[in-house]
Amino acid sequence: MQRWASTVARGRIPQAAAVIIGNEVLSGKTKDTNSYYLARTLFDQGVRFARIETIPDLIDDISSTVRRLSSSFDYVFTSGGIGCTHDDITYEAIRQAFGLSLEVHHPTVETMRAYYASRGVKLNSAHMRMATLPYPADKIISTPGLWVPAVQVRNVFILPGIPSLFESMVKSILAQLDCGTGKFHRLSLNLAVGESEIADCLAEVQSEFPTVEIGSYPKLSQGDPPSYTTQLCFTSRDQQLARDAVAAFESRFKHI
Amino acid sequence: MQRWASTVARGRIPQAAAVIIGNEVLSGKTKDTNSYYLARTLFDQGVRFARIETIPDLIDDISSTVRRLSSSFDYVFTSGGIGCTHDDITYEAIRQAFGLSLEVHHPTVETMRAYYASRGVKLNSAHMRMATLPYPADKIISTPGLWVPAVQVRNVFILPGIPSLFESMVKSILAQLDCGTGKFHRLSLNLAVGESEIADCLAEVQSEFPTVEIGSYPKLSQGDPPSYTTQLCFTSRDQQLARDAVAAFESRFKHI
Repeated sequence: MQRWASTVARGRIPQAAAVIIGNEVLSGKTKDTNSYYLARTLFDQGVRFARIETIPDLIDDISSTVRRLSSSFDYVFTSGGIGCTHDDITYEAIRQAFGLSLEVHHPTVETMRAYYASRGVKLNSAHMRMATLPYPADKIISTPGLWVPAVQVRNVFILPGIPSLFESMVKSILAQLDCGTGKFHRLSLNLAVGESEIADCLAEVQSEFPTVEIGSYPKLSQGDPPSYTTQLCFTSRDQQLARDAVAAFESRFKHI
Repeated sequence: MQRWASTVARGRIPQAAAVIIGNEVLSGKTKDTNSYYLARTLFDQGVRFARIETIPDLIDDISSTVRRLSSSFDYVFTSGGIGCTHDDITYEAIRQAFGLSLEVHHPTVETMRAYYASRGVKLNSAHMRMATLPYPADKIISTPGLWVPAVQVRNVFILPGIPSLFESMVKSILAQLDCGTGKFHRLSLNLAVGESEIADCLAEVQSEFPTVEIGSYPKLSQGDPPSYTTQLCFTSRDQQLARDAVAAFESRFKHI
């Protein structure tokens, strides 16, 4: 059932994508924080986060986006659209994407019934909609304290948009995920010079260390006149290699 | 030269997409704020923001993403990758996407020369890289006070990732953009009930007002036990229609 164990070869860096579903994000009503949370968490876990697509509540958009990303990445995380109102169509879209059906998941109904009973609420058809899940799912992942399940269909994890729920579920999932053999190491340098002064030197270091990802990020300081400083990031699964690249840059930089 | 004037028919809502380019966003080093800024600004302008794709600093990813979105949307905004270091490859990717060349843009060099001269800096090859632009561009859009130009190639606007620059340029561009004939109106209701209590009633109102976009957003409040409240948003280009949909919901809601 756990396809990831067989699909991510040992030593290879797994690649993940996210689909943020919601008109509220695209219309500026809501600031998406889930993709930033996922970015930091996947980085810490050693998974390369390679693409985020933010799309509207349209069934064909969701369906085609999920299908495309599922075939290109090891893991896909979706956020949003699994509530009980008319604009919650993610389960239906994923059913459509993979030619599945939708069926009531009785263990979820029972957990939900207990949750709502404690608040004096009886289940109605809207609640049942939230327990009607793509079938067959590869896994229904429960998170302690939550009745909302994370549904896994193939390599796609279907999560709610509410940040506190999304974050709890990402933690549950990543605790079970085979993320390969290593984590990323990122070393940073902050320089009081503009990028143009170090560009050539940096390009040489990048050529010398092709497997270290070297990023250069200018920052604009609001003086008069405004001035630029530069942050350099050296990222690698091999900590020593990242250190060596930093040292190579620093020894060249002294001579500029 | 201004293709938008002819491509967006009067009365039709123009659709925009964004490409956020940068490993720093995907690795969680940097929180992207440009897409949120664009979402709010396009909404205010009456442009439908229909897709955001966040992608790494890889030339083929940038090239294929921009080409695909350019053919599907009226406007595409890119953010990032137009500085002077080895990881700045957006101009080259867009050159590749549309079969263009790259040429030094002399007016940009002159503006840059004046800018840097005031700080006692002479131009070098790294600076020249920033003035080597896709050719032919459809438009080079300057922003008062900035030497960095916004380059327009077809329906694609190529912008820097630094938020203050990105935001200034979006303003300059939108001031020139033909956004059709109307703005969006969004009316909100905050209800002290969970979504499941209003889902059926809301679905009826949505059927009655198919052109009003009705979104329902649960909020989890951290009481003990935690409880849900619901925000409803009614969005339309036709303000009266949005008001009528709210009224239709409220009259039904009284009877729940």
